[in-house]
Amino acid sequence: MKHFINLNDVSDVKELVLEGLHQKANPLANQNLGKNKTIGLIFFNSSLRTRISTQKAAINLGMDVIVMNVGSDSWQLEFEDGVIMDQGKAEHIKEAAAVLGQYCDIIGVRAFAEFKSQEDDYREIVLESFRKYAGVPIVNLESATRHPCQSLADLITIEELKTRTRPKVVLTWVPHFKALPQAVANSFAEWVNETDYDFVITHPEGYDLAPQFVKNAKVTYSQEEAFADADFIYAKNWSSYSQYGQVLSQDPDWRITPEKMALTHNANFMHCLPVRRGLKVADEVLDSPQSAVIQQAGNRVWSVQAALKKILEEL
Amino acid sequence: MKHFINLNDVSDVKELVLEGLHQKANPLANQNLGKNKTIGLIFFNSSLRTRISTQKAAINLGMDVIVMNVGSDSWQLEFEDGVIMDQGKAEHIKEAAAVLGQYCDIIGVRAFAEFKSQEDDYREIVLESFRKYAGVPIVNLESATRHPCQSLADLITIEELKTRTRPKVVLTWVPHFKALPQAVANSFAEWVNETDYDFVITHPEGYDLAPQFVKNAKVTYSQEEAFADADFIYAKNWSSYSQYGQVLSQDPDWRITPEKMALTHNANFMHCLPVRRGLKVADEVLDSPQSAVIQQAGNRVWSVQAALKKILEEL
Amino acid sequence: MKHFINLNDVSDVKELVLEGLHQKANPLANQNLGKNKTIGLIFFNSSLRTRISTQKAAINLGMDVIVMNVGSDSWQLEFEDGVIMDQGKAEHIKEAAAVLGQYCDIIGVRAFAEFKSQEDDYREIVLESFRKYAGVPIVNLESATRHPCQSLADLITIEELKTRTRPKVVLTWVPHFKALPQAVANSFAEWVNETDYDFVITHPEGYDLAPQFVKNAKVTYSQEEAFADADFIYAKNWSSYSQYGQVLSQDPDWRITPEKMALTHNANFMHCLPVRRGLKVADEVLDSPQSAVIQQAGNRVWSVQAALKKILEEL
Repeated sequence: MKHFINLNDVSDVKELVLEGLHQKANPLANQNLGKNKTIGLIFFNSSLRTRISTQKAAINLGMDVIVMNVGSDSWQLEFEDGVIMDQGKAEHIKEAAAVLGQYCDIIGVRAFAEFKSQEDDYREIVLESFRKYAGVPIVNLESATRHPCQSLADLITIEELKTRTRPKVVLTWVPHFKALPQAVANSFAEWVNETDYDFVITHPEGYDLAPQFVKNAKVTYSQEEAFADADFIYAKNWSSYSQYGQVLSQDPDWRITPEKMALTHNANFMHCLPVRRGLKVADEVLDSPQSAVIQQAGNRVWSVQAALKKILEEL
Repeated sequence: MKHFINLNDVSDVKELVLEGLHQKANPLANQNLGKNKTIGLIFFNSSLRTRISTQKAAINLGMDVIVMNVGSDSWQLEFEDGVIMDQGKAEHIKEAAAVLGQYCDIIGVRAFAEFKSQEDDYREIVLESFRKYAGVPIVNLESATRHPCQSLADLITIEELKTRTRPKVVLTWVPHFKALPQAVANSFAEWVNETDYDFVITHPEGYDLAPQFVKNAKVTYSQEEAFADADFIYAKNWSSYSQYGQVLSQDPDWRITPEKMALTHNANFMHCLPVRRGLKVADEVLDSPQSAVIQQAGNRVWSVQAALKKILEEL
Repeated sequence: MKHFINLNDVSDVKELVLEGLHQKANPLANQNLGKNKTIGLIFFNSSLRTRISTQKAAINLGMDVIVMNVGSDSWQLEFEDGVIMDQGKAEHIKEAAAVLGQYCDIIGVRAFAEFKSQEDDYREIVLESFRKYAGVPIVNLESATRHPCQSLADLITIEELKTRTRPKVVLTWVPHFKALPQAVANSFAEWVNETDYDFVITHPEGYDLAPQFVKNAKVTYSQEEAFADADFIYAKNWSSYSQYGQVLSQDPDWRITPEKMALTHNANFMHCLPVRRGLKVADEVLDSPQSAVIQQAGNRVWSVQAALKKILEEL
């Protein structure tokens, strides 16, 4: 694998899921693969799971890790071509990425949607600039529109927990007062669409994800209908794509409750975390044995470790 | 040792002090003990000594280290049960601790007193939540009411420097304009009370520490009386416990001066650092050969290294 | 080498440049030299290249690395002697440096000019305090008046690229709207003055560097005259030394353009980065094959690796 930015970089999703399960069973089996190789982790935004699970995975593979917060540790970066840089941004991505490529064998980058422009966010200017200018493999630690490390961990978790060959997997919107990115939802849809799961997306009107992520998934505005016989409930808030970045609804009826979980086929509850208890999901659901959120978060190590292994093998 | 949160986690203080001295004499003797083990250091507050000495100790034991500042690197955390998380805090400690426990074999946590409520601070909600939810050993890197890594280093330093079998050890309040936590003073008292030293605490009226820390130590409001024949002067400011978090006095007469040190049995001067020169203690005292503050800070490595060794042995 | 703070710490510049080239050719040849040695990197200011290249160099030499941002990670430091510390600064450099010296075998420090006082900046109070109090070797990661890791990388780059035995090297001021330190320009002049290159400095009136850095270099206020037959154009903005810290000119005629580069002997373009495209230099120059800025930044690893090797050999 050359990069791990979006699904196009992955030749075989199923094999990558199996690699994740294999890494989980044998965490230190490839300790020599990353020896004397350095991964730089560049954060434009906060992180807990991604920050630490990626460090852990890299360490498991024998790599050296350098972490940097853009903005507090270093300079603000400019991404537009041809501008006269006479404002707050001190360095252009052309130089920053190329320089980081001089120091690091692999670069991981987190850069959330900025919500200034749908077009800018959806052309993935930060991650694609790193791909273009760094000269080394890039790992997406959550970009404006995708979070592949999360999605791969999600599939690993479903594979571990599924009790039917073809589980019914439901991605449900849940309420939130802030405008959150679509990245996790987009990415989950993109990856599940590569499997043969029975996949349903449910959300209020106005919250349809971009068509390139939805593809042929079933979409319903009835959460109740979606939950019927479901094996996995994947809850996530996102802001509107069509009315870009807007909060059109905070409807508390979309919260996940024990009553709603009772409609399912004893489904596991999933969420990428962090999750706001009470607001998006009832404590009783998160604290129930059916909650898979900690296992899911734990699988973040094996997800990124699988991706890094694939990249290291081709370095 | 399962955790290193407070003195109840320690079975034998004297043996742990000896282990610290042993680690100092043989810093790299246990380099294999921590191999392929990861410690996560989680800072809710600033740190210099603790941050770096803990990293150094972990490295000496062969561990991998991951450091995270809560708030700037990651999300603000909620600690209360049953709340609807519709404010600034994006993640609950239940998830955060459990997730960190998935990535780390040991977790160190620094979380100062917030001074919003004596009850909240003294029930040690942050550290005890990590103990409850992380599922891995927790090391206290200074909590609301205690700083055991510091106290153990203090005892190691006294053992190195004492010239009498049963030295007279004086904990003295010194003035400061800010409301500082009681943690270092509490903890020092708690640990010294486990020794057979002659232990005296001196401070202005209104500054009595909580009874569970003072126990049977002698307490006097006369600094002069306390200093007579002392072998160790341990200076520290703290805010009032009874009028919780208040600055009742900034009396400059409580500053440590060469004249006061002359009352002692050629005592060593100790302070946990950082120390505000001139305000709490005269330059002449800090710059004298009797000042042990740098040695004491250096011993922070061996203190936490001893604790980590005990924890690693039972992992 | 005992320290790497300024040129006085270096016994033989040419040999150090050769060592840099040697490290570049053999990055892992000295992996055992730094084993079980810890370098602490202390940042009072932002950093990208220095932060990451120094970590990479230390890793290449087998060292353990601890990074700390002063102010956000730890406390604000006091540098003046004899003050009563009753303001915002919680710790004195006397303690902070001595304590860091207890934990680290080598300390790297970045502390920019503060522009409050020319005298304070030019006596290098931060770096010299570390030299005085830390008790271990200090590496200058850019100080108020110097940036030797950069200058050594610059000389390494010139040695790699020069096509004439005695190249003409031009340091040219370029416009900027902010008051930038003189450190990079000072240091470049200081180091080039140790070589036998034909060295010319050009800038508008009022921008003369301090005489101890200029020495016998040719100085001209005519950029055009300076560029004639030049082999290397080293662009950098700095604020006025004589009218200390002031921006006397933002004259866009001093920008580097393809037309100006055409005056040279097919010169390489150099800049320490970050560089503001359009403002200081035209995109066409930065994107031309003659631009050496990425190679120059890459050489930052070998520069500091050479210096660290020299220090480690004498530890």
